[in-house]
Amino acid sequence: MSPLTARLPGDDAADETSAASAQVDPLLIEIDHVAIAVNDLGDAIDYYRETFGAVVEHREVVESDGVEEALLKVAESYIQLLTPTRDDSPVAKYLEKKGEGLHHIGYRVTDCAVALQAVKDQGGRVIDEAPRPGSRGTTVAFVHPKTAFGTLIELVQE
Amino acid sequence: MSPLTARLPGDDAADETSAASAQVDPLLIEIDHVAIAVNDLGDAIDYYRETFGAVVEHREVVESDGVEEALLKVAESYIQLLTPTRDDSPVAKYLEKKGEGLHHIGYRVTDCAVALQAVKDQGGRVIDEAPRPGSRGTTVAFVHPKTAFGTLIELVQE
Repeated sequence: MSPLTARLPGDDAADETSAASAQVDPLLIEIDHVAIAVNDLGDAIDYYRETFGAVVEHREVVESDGVEEALLKVAESYIQLLTPTRDDSPVAKYLEKKGEGLHHIGYRVTDCAVALQAVKDQGGRVIDEAPRPGSRGTTVAFVHPKTAFGTLIELVQE
Repeated sequence: MSPLTARLPGDDAADETSAASAQVDPLLIEIDHVAIAVNDLGDAIDYYRETFGAVVEHREVVESDGVEEALLKVAESYIQLLTPTRDDSPVAKYLEKKGEGLHHIGYRVTDCAVALQAVKDQGGRVIDEAPRPGSRGTTVAFVHPKTAFGTLIELVQE
């Protein structure tokens, strides 16, 4: 039995459970971040500080992704302001095609590999076949929007 | 003095503070929700339950907005799955134009009127001139994406 379809102990009605109501262990423990693609990182940082008093807690260039990001902490989550550092960055292409706005959502998980496998087990398309390093020391994997209702999802393990 | 430019007590250097570094009271206390526009609410609910074990905590038709939403709780935040209930709903137009995906972000605030005024005071364009009822008994106001880096922002007071 896959851990994804594991049933609760004492669930006598388990055998009657249809696929539609099967219990799955909750994998999402926090909205880690909401990423917003912007043309000018400084301008976006100013907007959030001057309007909402939200300030940068962490700022990092992620060379492998061709982005610079600024993380503004809100409770246990982050607003991630994201700008490309080179023209062939996926975020550069996104900005060119769609303009500024919501880019992806990061869900915090306990174990990135387990969550990624859960996506694959359900037939979901992934961008990262295996977890890889993300910003601020995290381990991450991206899920393709094609099989996720148009949403680019990042699985983030701290 | 506007509460937005109020300085911290004992901040002797306040008079030296430039606009760029002015202290603003933090207004965002939580990422209330991330809203995802989908064509079929049932399918999207199934996806999140079967893949991630995220289940519906609240479901509501909001007639005034022409939407039905399902809220999946993740820590203190929600994933809001959103589908139109009529063809002239803004979400219907969004789906037609852009397809499924991230639609808006809801920031939880202590006082919706104060946060909305903060946006206006900074020259931000708003959709709701005054706070109005939202789903699950909240008080909400939408900020226009035009002056918010392409992001449709909802200010949510519980």
